[in-house]
Amino acid sequence: MQNDEQEIRQLVATWMAATKSGDVKAVLELMSDDVVFLTAVNPPMRGKAAFAESQRALADASIDATGDVQEIRTFGEWGYAWTQLSVTISPKSGEPVTRSGATLTIFRKEQGTWVLFRDANMLAPASR
Amino acid sequence: MQNDEQEIRQLVATWMAATKSGDVKAVLELMSDDVVFLTAVNPPMRGKAAFAESQRALADASIDATGDVQEIRTFGEWGYAWTQLSVTISPKSGEPVTRSGATLTIFRKEQGTWVLFRDANMLAPASR
Repeated sequence: MQNDEQEIRQLVATWMAATKSGDVKAVLELMSDDVVFLTAVNPPMRGKAAFAESQRALADASIDATGDVQEIRTFGEWGYAWTQLSVTISPKSGEPVTRSGATLTIFRKEQGTWVLFRDANMLAPASR
Repeated sequence: MQNDEQEIRQLVATWMAATKSGDVKAVLELMSDDVVFLTAVNPPMRGKAAFAESQRALADASIDATGDVQEIRTFGEWGYAWTQLSVTISPKSGEPVTRSGATLTIFRKEQGTWVLFRDANMLAPASR
Protein backbone atom coordinates (compact mmCIF):
# COMPACT_ATOMS: atom_id res chain seq x y z
CA MET A 1 0.00 0.00 0.00
CA GLN A 2 2.81 2.38 0.98
CA ASN A 3 4.61 1.53 -2.25
CA ASP A 4 1.49 2.10 -4.32
CA GLU A 5 1.06 5.53 -2.78
CA GLN A 6 4.68 6.40 -3.50
CA GLU A 7 4.36 5.18 -7.08
CA ILE A 8 1.33 7.39 -7.65
CA ARG A 9 3.15 10.35 -6.07
CA GLN A 10 6.06 9.66 -8.44
CA LEU A 11 3.67 9.47 -11.41
CA VAL A 12 2.28 12.92 -10.55
CA ALA A 13 5.82 14.35 -10.20
CA THR A 14 6.94 12.75 -13.48
CA TRP A 15 3.82 14.10 -15.24
CA MET A 16 4.61 17.66 -14.14
CA ALA A 17 8.31 17.39 -15.03
CA ALA A 18 7.57 15.92 -18.49
CA THR A 19 4.93 18.58 -19.12
CA LYS A 20 7.39 21.30 -18.16
CA SER A 21 10.04 19.93 -20.53
CA GLY A 22 7.47 19.56 -23.34
CA ASP A 23 7.93 15.79 -23.50
CA VAL A 24 4.44 14.79 -24.66
CA LYS A 25 5.58 11.22 -25.40
CA ALA A 26 6.62 10.74 -21.76
CA VAL A 27 3.29 12.13 -20.54
CA LEU A 28 1.38 9.76 -22.84
CA GLU A 29 3.12 6.80 -21.19
CA LEU A 30 1.61 7.81 -17.86
CA MET A 31 -2.01 7.34 -18.95
CA SER A 32 -4.29 4.45 -19.91
CA ASP A 33 -5.26 4.08 -23.59
CA ASP A 34 -8.86 4.48 -22.35
CA VAL A 35 -8.18 7.62 -20.30
CA VAL A 36 -10.95 10.23 -19.95
CA PHE A 37 -10.27 13.87 -19.06
CA LEU A 38 -13.16 15.83 -17.56
CA THR A 39 -13.12 19.63 -17.29
CA ALA A 40 -15.62 22.44 -16.78
CA VAL A 41 -14.62 23.93 -20.13
CA ASN A 42 -14.81 21.14 -22.70
CA PRO A 43 -16.83 17.96 -23.26
CA PRO A 44 -15.19 14.73 -21.97
CA MET A 45 -11.92 14.07 -23.84
CA ARG A 46 -11.56 10.35 -24.42
CA GLY A 47 -8.39 8.44 -25.17
CA LYS A 48 -4.68 8.93 -25.47
CA ALA A 49 -4.86 10.11 -29.10
CA ALA A 50 -7.21 12.96 -28.18
CA PHE A 51 -4.83 14.05 -25.43
CA ALA A 52 -1.87 14.02 -27.85
CA GLU A 53 -3.89 16.12 -30.31
CA SER A 54 -4.79 18.63 -27.59
CA GLN A 55 -1.10 19.08 -26.74
CA ARG A 56 -0.21 20.04 -30.31
CA ALA A 57 -1.92 23.39 -29.80
CA LEU A 58 0.51 24.00 -26.93
CA ALA A 59 3.65 22.92 -28.79
CA ASP A 60 5.09 26.43 -28.89
CA ALA A 61 4.10 27.37 -25.34
CA SER A 62 6.10 26.72 -22.21
CA ILE A 63 4.17 25.14 -19.37
CA ASP A 64 5.06 25.21 -15.70
CA ALA A 65 3.04 23.13 -13.26
CA THR A 66 3.38 22.80 -9.50
CA GLY A 67 1.21 20.50 -7.44
CA ASP A 68 0.47 19.64 -3.87
CA VAL A 69 -1.01 16.17 -3.33
CA GLN A 70 -3.71 16.40 -0.66
CA GLU A 71 -4.70 12.76 -0.48
CA ILE A 72 -3.94 9.41 -2.07
CA ARG A 73 -5.82 6.18 -1.43
CA THR A 74 -5.37 2.86 -3.19
CA PHE A 75 -7.61 -0.23 -3.29
CA GLY A 76 -5.75 -3.10 -4.90
CA GLU A 77 -5.23 -2.12 -8.53
CA TRP A 78 -7.23 1.09 -8.27
CA GLY A 79 -6.69 4.35 -6.46
CA TYR A 80 -7.44 8.03 -6.41
CA ALA A 81 -5.60 11.25 -5.64
CA TRP A 82 -6.78 14.75 -4.87
CA THR A 83 -4.21 17.37 -5.85
CA GLN A 84 -4.12 21.16 -5.67
CA LEU A 85 -2.42 22.35 -8.87
CA SER A 86 -1.15 25.57 -10.37
CA VAL A 87 -0.36 25.65 -14.09
CA THR A 88 1.12 28.60 -15.98
CA ILE A 89 1.04 28.50 -19.77
CA SER A 90 3.35 31.01 -21.45
CA PRO A 91 2.70 31.25 -25.20
CA LYS A 92 5.57 32.29 -27.48
CA SER A 93 3.84 35.61 -27.94
CA GLY A 94 1.29 36.98 -25.52
CA GLU A 95 0.70 37.04 -21.80
CA PRO A 96 1.20 33.98 -19.60
CA VAL A 97 -1.99 32.54 -18.11
CA THR A 98 -2.11 30.88 -14.70
CA ARG A 99 -4.86 28.50 -13.70
CA SER A 100 -5.10 26.90 -10.29
CA GLY A 101 -7.39 24.60 -8.37
CA ALA A 102 -8.11 20.98 -7.61
CA THR A 103 -7.89 17.78 -9.59
CA LEU A 104 -9.48 14.47 -8.58
CA THR A 105 -7.86 11.61 -10.43
CA ILE A 106 -8.55 7.87 -10.70
CA PHE A 107 -5.48 5.69 -11.21
CA ARG A 108 -5.34 2.09 -12.36
CA LYS A 109 -2.55 -0.45 -12.21
CA GLU A 110 -2.05 -1.86 -15.71
CA GLN A 111 0.53 -4.65 -16.08
CA GLY A 112 2.09 -3.69 -12.76
CA THR A 113 2.35 0.03 -13.49
CA TRP A 114 0.09 2.80 -12.23
CA VAL A 115 -1.42 4.97 -14.96
CA LEU A 116 -3.93 7.80 -15.01
CA PHE A 117 -7.43 6.55 -15.88
CA ARG A 118 -9.94 9.35 -15.14
CA ASP A 119 -9.10 12.97 -14.42
CA ALA A 120 -11.42 15.67 -13.12
CA ASN A 121 -9.78 19.06 -13.65
CA MET A 122 -11.28 22.02 -11.77
CA LEU A 123 -8.53 24.56 -12.48
CA ALA A 124 -9.79 28.09 -12.96
CA PRO A 125 -8.07 31.37 -13.88
CA ALA A 126 -6.05 32.50 -10.87
CA SER A 127 -6.66 36.02 -9.62
CA ARG A 128 -3.50 38.09 -9.71
CA MET B 1 -20.47 -6.01 -7.40
CA GLN B 2 -23.72 -5.71 -9.34
CA ASN B 3 -25.52 -4.85 -6.10
CA ASP B 4 -22.92 -2.24 -5.16
CA GLU B 5 -23.35 -0.57 -8.54
CA GLN B 6 -27.11 -0.54 -8.14
CA GLU B 7 -26.83 0.88 -4.63
CA ILE B 8 -24.63 3.73 -5.87
CA ARG B 9 -27.04 4.38 -8.74
CA GLN B 10 -29.86 4.51 -6.18
CA LEU B 11 -27.84 6.91 -3.99
CA VAL B 12 -27.42 9.29 -6.96
CA ALA B 13 -31.16 9.09 -7.74
CA THR B 14 -32.11 9.64 -4.08
CA TRP B 15 -29.72 12.61 -3.88
CA MET B 16 -31.37 14.30 -6.87
CA ALA B 17 -34.92 13.59 -5.61
CA ALA B 18 -34.14 14.87 -2.09
CA THR B 19 -32.45 17.97 -3.53
CA LYS B 20 -35.50 18.65 -5.70
CA SER B 21 -37.85 18.36 -2.73
CA GLY B 22 -35.59 20.58 -0.60
CA ASP B 23 -34.98 17.77 1.92
CA VAL B 24 -31.46 18.78 3.07
CA LYS B 25 -31.62 16.30 5.98
CA ALA B 26 -32.09 13.41 3.56
CA VAL B 27 -29.19 14.62 1.39
CA LEU B 28 -26.93 14.86 4.46
CA GLU B 29 -27.58 11.18 5.20
CA LEU B 30 -26.06 10.28 1.82
CA MET B 31 -22.58 11.64 2.59
CA SER B 32 -19.69 10.80 4.91
CA ASP B 33 -19.04 13.09 7.88
CA ASP B 34 -15.60 13.64 6.31
CA VAL B 35 -16.93 14.47 2.83
CA VAL B 36 -15.00 16.95 0.66
CA PHE B 37 -16.61 18.86 -2.23
CA LEU B 38 -14.27 20.18 -4.93
CA THR B 39 -15.36 22.77 -7.49
CA ALA B 40 -13.73 25.24 -9.89
CA VAL B 41 -15.45 28.11 -8.10
CA ASN B 42 -14.74 27.73 -4.39
CA PRO B 43 -11.98 26.31 -2.18
CA PRO B 44 -12.47 22.70 -1.02
CA MET B 45 -15.58 22.43 1.17
CA ARG B 46 -14.94 19.97 3.99
CA GLY B 47 -17.46 18.14 6.08
CA LYS B 48 -21.18 17.62 6.39
CA ALA B 49 -21.72 20.79 8.44
CA ALA B 50 -20.19 22.97 5.73
CA PHE B 51 -22.50 21.38 3.16
CA ALA B 52 -25.56 22.01 5.36
CA GLU B 53 -24.50 25.65 5.78
CA SER B 54 -24.07 26.06 1.99
CA GLN B 55 -27.61 24.80 1.45
CA ARG B 56 -29.12 27.45 3.72
CA ALA B 57 -28.40 30.07 1.06
CA LEU B 58 -30.59 28.04 -1.29
CA ALA B 59 -33.46 27.50 1.17
CA ASP B 60 -35.86 29.70 -0.80
CA ALA B 61 -34.84 28.48 -4.24
CA SER B 62 -36.23 25.49 -6.06
CA ILE B 63 -33.65 23.12 -7.49
CA ASP B 64 -34.14 20.66 -10.30
CA ALA B 65 -31.37 18.19 -11.12
CA THR B 66 -31.21 15.52 -13.79
CA GLY B 67 -28.26 13.19 -14.19
CA ASP B 68 -26.94 10.55 -16.51
CA VAL B 69 -24.49 8.12 -14.93
CA GLN B 70 -21.70 7.40 -17.43
CA GLU B 71 -19.69 4.91 -15.43
CA ILE B 72 -19.62 3.24 -12.02
CA ARG B 73 -16.82 1.02 -10.71
CA THR B 74 -16.48 -0.44 -7.23
CA PHE B 75 -13.47 -1.99 -5.46
CA GLY B 76 -14.60 -3.60 -2.23
CA GLU B 77 -15.75 -0.79 0.03
CA TRP B 78 -14.73 1.98 -2.37
CA GLY B 79 -15.99 3.06 -5.75
CA TYR B 80 -16.33 5.94 -8.15
CA ALA B 81 -18.92 7.29 -10.55
CA TRP B 82 -18.73 9.68 -13.45
CA THR B 83 -22.04 11.47 -14.05
CA GLN B 84 -23.19 14.09 -16.53
CA LEU B 85 -25.48 16.45 -14.61
CA SER B 86 -27.77 19.37 -15.31
CA VAL B 87 -28.93 21.51 -12.39
CA THR B 88 -31.39 24.41 -12.59
CA ILE B 89 -31.68 26.72 -9.60
CA SER B 90 -34.76 28.93 -9.60
CA PRO B 91 -34.61 31.61 -6.89
CA LYS B 92 -37.88 32.96 -5.48
CA SER B 93 -37.24 36.18 -7.37
CA GLY B 94 -34.92 36.39 -10.34
CA GLU B 95 -34.04 34.31 -13.34
CA PRO B 96 -33.38 30.56 -13.11
CA VAL B 97 -29.77 29.51 -13.70
CA THR B 98 -28.83 26.22 -15.32
CA ARG B 99 -25.41 24.66 -14.90
CA SER B 100 -24.38 21.43 -16.60
CA GLY B 101 -21.34 19.21 -16.91
CA ALA B 102 -19.53 16.31 -15.32
CA THR B 103 -19.02 15.14 -11.77
CA LEU B 104 -16.46 12.56 -10.68
CA THR B 105 -17.36 11.16 -7.28
CA ILE B 106 -15.66 8.80 -4.83
CA PHE B 107 -18.01 6.64 -2.75
CA ARG B 108 -17.24 4.68 0.39
CA LYS B 109 -19.18 1.94 2.13
CA GLU B 110 -19.60 2.94 5.77
CA GLN B 111 -21.30 0.40 8.06
CA GLY B 112 -22.70 -1.41 5.05
CA THR B 113 -24.11 1.67 3.33
CA TRP B 114 -22.60 3.56 0.39
CA VAL B 115 -22.07 7.27 1.02
CA LEU B 116 -20.48 10.10 -0.95
CA PHE B 117 -16.88 10.74 0.14
CA ARG B 118 -15.21 13.04 -2.43
CA ASP B 119 -16.99 14.99 -5.16
CA ALA B 120 -15.41 16.81 -8.09
CA ASN B 121 -18.00 19.14 -9.61
CA MET B 122 -17.25 20.56 -13.07
CA LEU B 123 -20.66 22.06 -13.79
CA ALA B 124 -20.54 25.30 -15.77
CA PRO B 125 -23.22 27.76 -16.87
CA ALA B 126 -25.14 26.14 -19.71
CA SER B 127 -25.38 28.09 -22.93
CA ARG B 128 -29.00 28.71 -23.84
